[in-house]
Order: sequence, then structure tokens, then C-alpha cells
Amino acid sequence: MTSETKEARVLEAIRERRELVNAAIDEELPVQEPERLYEATRYILEAGGKRLRPTVTTLAAEAVTGTEPMGADFRAFPSLDGDEVDVMRAAVAIEVIQSFTLIHDDIMDEDDLRRGVPAVHEAYDVSTAILAGDTLYSKAFEFMTETGADPQHGLEAMRMLASTCTEICEGQALDVAFESRDDILPEEYLEMVELKTAVLYGASAATPALLLGADEAVVDALYQYGIDSGRAFQIQDDVLDLTVPSEELGKQRGSDLVEGKETLITLHARQQGVDVDDLVDADTPAEVTEAAIDDAVAALEEVGSIEYARDTAADLTERSKEHLELLPESGSRSLLEDLADYLIVRGY
Amino acid sequence: MTSETKEARVLEAIRERRELVNAAIDEELPVQEPERLYEATRYILEAGGKRLRPTVTTLAAEAVTGTEPMGADFRAFPSLDGDEVDVMRAAVAIEVIQSFTLIHDDIMDEDDLRRGVPAVHEAYDVSTAILAGDTLYSKAFEFMTETGADPQHGLEAMRMLASTCTEICEGQALDVAFESRDDILPEEYLEMVELKTAVLYGASAATPALLLGADEAVVDALYQYGIDSGRAFQIQDDVLDLTVPSEELGKQRGSDLVEGKETLITLHARQQGVDVDDLVDADTPAEVTEAAIDDAVAALEEVGSIEYARDTAADLTERSKEHLELLPESGSRSLLEDLADYLIVRGY
Repeated sequence: MTSETKEARVLEAIRERRELVNAAIDEELPVQEPERLYEATRYILEAGGKRLRPTVTTLAAEAVTGTEPMGADFRAFPSLDGDEVDVMRAAVAIEVIQSFTLIHDDIMDEDDLRRGVPAVHEAYDVSTAILAGDTLYSKAFEFMTETGADPQHGLEAMRMLASTCTEICEGQALDVAFESRDDILPEEYLEMVELKTAVLYGASAATPALLLGADEAVVDALYQYGIDSGRAFQIQDDVLDLTVPSEELGKQRGSDLVEGKETLITLHARQQGVDVDDLVDADTPAEVTEAAIDDAVAALEEVGSIEYARDTAADLTERSKEHLELLPESGSRSLLEDLADYLIVRGY
Repeated sequence: MTSETKEARVLEAIRERRELVNAAIDEELPVQEPERLYEATRYILEAGGKRLRPTVTTLAAEAVTGTEPMGADFRAFPSLDGDEVDVMRAAVAIEVIQSFTLIHDDIMDEDDLRRGVPAVHEAYDVSTAILAGDTLYSKAFEFMTETGADPQHGLEAMRMLASTCTEICEGQALDVAFESRDDILPEEYLEMVELKTAVLYGASAATPALLLGADEAVVDALYQYGIDSGRAFQIQDDVLDLTVPSEELGKQRGSDLVEGKETLITLHARQQGVDVDDLVDADTPAEVTEAAIDDAVAALEEVGSIEYARDTAADLTERSKEHLELLPESGSRSLLEDLADYLIVRGY
């Protein structure tokens, strides 16, 4: 299959699952009293998002059980023990955790735009944003208790969700701490990315395996698939922040650079002797010009830093796909492989 | 038994359990990397607190199983089915949830002092406070998955913890919304208090019943015990905010009044025709004088509002104790009754 056909197939899988996920979000998270609070919880979910993590969850459920793509009802998915599991509710739980982290991160990072619209703390206020995040947090745990899985499996999925959330917080704490340091090593950066981003991909892939009663080796393999493709995803995100036009990004291109966020790209450039702190002159994304970002990107390209980040992401993607060899061959397993590839070739 | 003897007995029970709870917190929540984050999670726990909720949890575990006070190891508590449950870990989970809500509430309410020391967002910064709260949140869920209870019971306890957290968020949202309204009804206030405060007392009392395999009727009775005594507790808190010297409160006396927070006291006073908004002149707790608070309290006493709040709390306390009649008689059940009484006679 050509890479273009593969990408079209992945995009179609994402699109059809996104529709199901959005319908499930409507069912699981209705706006109720107090309305302003629940509207704020829905606001960011309605602003967009590809639902990549729920796509991983539903594909992994199929791959674990050897079910062909879209071959079973995600609301009553046959487990390996014969009972029915609401895999979709688990997928919504993970998407909802992702939304909670975006809301709180935007407050901490003072990012005022998200998905092209004002962040929750701008559209509402900081108090509502903190509370909306906290509400999504507990809702996710509520959903995960209600999948209908065998209680032992359900409890294991809860444990993974809880420890994943702890790790995400640790990753965000490291990310914030890195802003006031200028001696970060690439391996420290990669550890931060693993905690902040990759563990939720790991949980997205491994949770259905836990719920459906898969062997520990299969759970581990899917978790590692998620970790490696999640790290690649974040590195690609750092590349996109510099290379995709602001209109498509939904926020100012190069804002990581303006805000002094270290990425694998800036860390590599520093090692090549580039004075990264002087690359752009502006203090806030609102002040910077597109021309200034163009110059900065050219300087980073000259020393090979953007290519280095792309190569690292490609290596991680290859590794992520190798973990899947443990699973039975199926169309769903192929789609998981193609999805890993897509995560690093995607535009935005 | 005289009421003084009863109170001494309750205080002794709280003291001895607090020591065990504090030791368990040290074990369950060590300071690890990233250190600043984990120090912030420990900061508020170390600043004090009576550990009333874990006291309720440990007493309820004893009362459910007919165990006399301190008659079994809370780390390996015999369930009704014969297995051993780490009731202490569940108690720590609930205390940790309480700490998370305090940290986030203090940011939202712009309360800069807590337990006599700067709030987390003052001692550290807002980002660290948001993250410390988020970390305690997931840690609590981690702890609750690791009690060793029968998986079905464990999952039920997780569900109660998660829905309790959702309700706490709803209660805090109502509390924030009430600040910009001047037409709040006493029953709306009581509903807010139920969500914001009482449900966590309900969960504190009912969780051990779930984990230990008690009948649904016992679970419900303990939950209602917690709800009614928790509502009484919050109403008493509102009374204390006006009547306890600032040094003992750990913050400015009357700060609720200065900040325009409605309480059962102010709502009653409004119904008596008092212009509550004009009772004190200051805009922030830092500006107000003790004399101005004295005058405001005198005005509220004159129309009977403080007595009304005390009477309402006393009624709720009586009701809370009636729910316990379903449990077998034991020293632990008596202590739960006495604890309910203590919640509304306590100073601070």
C-alpha cells in the first residue's frame, strides 16, 4: 500500500471514530446544573480536537481481540472472558482527562488561545477554569468505574488512569521548572515528554487490554506502543509549533520559542552553539512578527535541529510499531501501525 | 456520661487516630521527584488539620463490624467476608481529597491564609498550587485502588469517591456563583453546603462500609450520618468564622462577612430586614478592624441569626445520630454519635 493510501485510510478511521466519540461525549457529559460549570467543561471539548486518544483506545480494543475495524459495538464490546465492556466510555474518560489537563495547563502557561478560540480561563474566568478541570477529572474516574468490565479488570484500569494522572502532573511540574533553567539535558526533556504526554497515550492503548482481560504481556506491549508513539507525537508537536502557519495552528506560530519553552529542537541547537534565547526578540506571542519567526526557523534549520527532532520522532515511531508484533495480525493492528506513522507526518 | 466526659473521650479518639493518620500520610505521600511539587502537596497537610474525616472513616469501619475502638489494625482490617482491608489507606485518600479542595478553593476565593500559614498559592505560586491539588487528586484515587478490598467493593468505593468529587466541584461552583447574587434562599444555601462539604463526610462514613462488604442499608445509613453531621459542621464553621478570635481561627475573624460570602446567618439576617451588605465597611479581610466585626456580630445576634444557625446545626446533628441506630451497639458507634455532637460544640 502506498503511504498516501495508508494516510487516507488512517484519516478515515479517525474521522469515523471521532463521530462516535463525539456522540458518546454528548451522552456522558450533558450540560446540567450548575450550568455555567458544565458549559465550561463542554467548551473545550466542543472547540475541536481530533480525538486521537479515543481512536487509539478503540483500535486497541479491536486489535487485542482480533476484531476487524468497526467490527463490534464499542458500547458493548465482547471481552476475552465473554462479558461486554463499554470501551467507548473508557475512551471518553481518557479524552476527558486530556481536556482537563489542557484547561489547567493553559492557566499555568498563560496560553490565552486553544484550538483557535479563547482558552477556558479567558472565555470564562480562572476560577471556572480550575473548577471545570477538576470536574472533568472526577467525571473521567466516574466513567471508568462504569464500563461493565470484570471488577478486577475495572480496578486495574482505574489504577492505571490514576497513576497516569499523577505522572502527567509530574511532567507538567518538570515542564514549568524547565522554564527557569538553561542547563536541561535532552534526556531530561525526553523524560518530561514521557510524563507529560506519552503516558496518556500509553494508557489509551493499554486500558482496553486491561478491561478486556488481555495477558499482561499484551497490556505492556500496548502501553509501550503508546509511550513511544506519544513521545514521537510530542516531538512532532514541537516541530509543528515552528513550521505550521498560525491560522492552521490556532495560535501564534513559534509561541514556544517566544515563551522560552525548551524543546528537543532548542536543546539540540544549544548543543550546536546557537544562542537560542536571542533567536526572537519579542516577550509575548502577541508581539512577535512572522518574519522574526521565519528567521529563527532558518537559524534552527541551518544547524540541523529541526531535522534532528524529526529523526528522533521517526526512530520512536519505528520502535512503537515493533511492540505491536506481539498482537495477532488484523486490520486493526495495521491501523494502529499506520496511526503511529500518521502522528509524525500530520500537519495539524 | 456527662457532656464534658463525652467531649474528652471524643478528643482523645481524634488525637490517637490523628497520630496514626499522620504516620500513614508520611508513608503514602513521601516527597519524591519533582521535589517542589511533592513538597507543595505535603505543605498543607503538615500545616495542621484535625483529620476529622479519617477519624470518621476509622470509627465507621469499627462500628460496621462491631469492633470496639482501636480493637483492630486499620492497615489490615477484617472485613465482613473475612479478607483484610487497608482502611487507613482509604482514610488517607479522603483526607488527601479534602486537602486538594482546600488548595484549589483558596486560589478561587483569593484566601491567602490557611491554618495560620500562607496558602499554597502564596507560599509557592498559583501554578504549583493548581498542580499540587491535581496531584493530590490522582494520588487519592491511586490509594483507593490499593485497599486490598474485594474488587467489586473496591470499585464501588472508587465510584463513590469520584461522584463525591464531582459534587464537591458543583458545590464550589454554586458557592462562587452565590457571591454575585443577592436573592439566595436558605434552602439553596443548604444544598450548596451539602455538595461542597457534607458529601465528603458522607463518603468518609460510607466508604469503609462499602470496602468491608456491609449491607446497602448500612452504607446508606452511614452516608446519611455523614451528610447531616457534615451540614451541621459547615453551619458551625460559619458561626466560628464570626465568634472565634482571629489568632485561633488562623485567619481574620469575620472574613466571610467582609468577602460578601452568604451563610445561613446572613441569609436569616436578610429575612429579618438587616442590610447585611452594609454590616462591615472594609473590602478585604486585611482592612477590617476587630471592633467593626464586633459591631456586626452584635447586630446579627440581636435579630437572632447566630442562634438560628446554631439551632439548625443542632437539629441536623440529632438527625445524623438517628441514622446510626441501624448499626449494632458498640463503643465505636457511641463515639460516632459523640463526634457528631462535638462537630457543633467545638471551638476551632
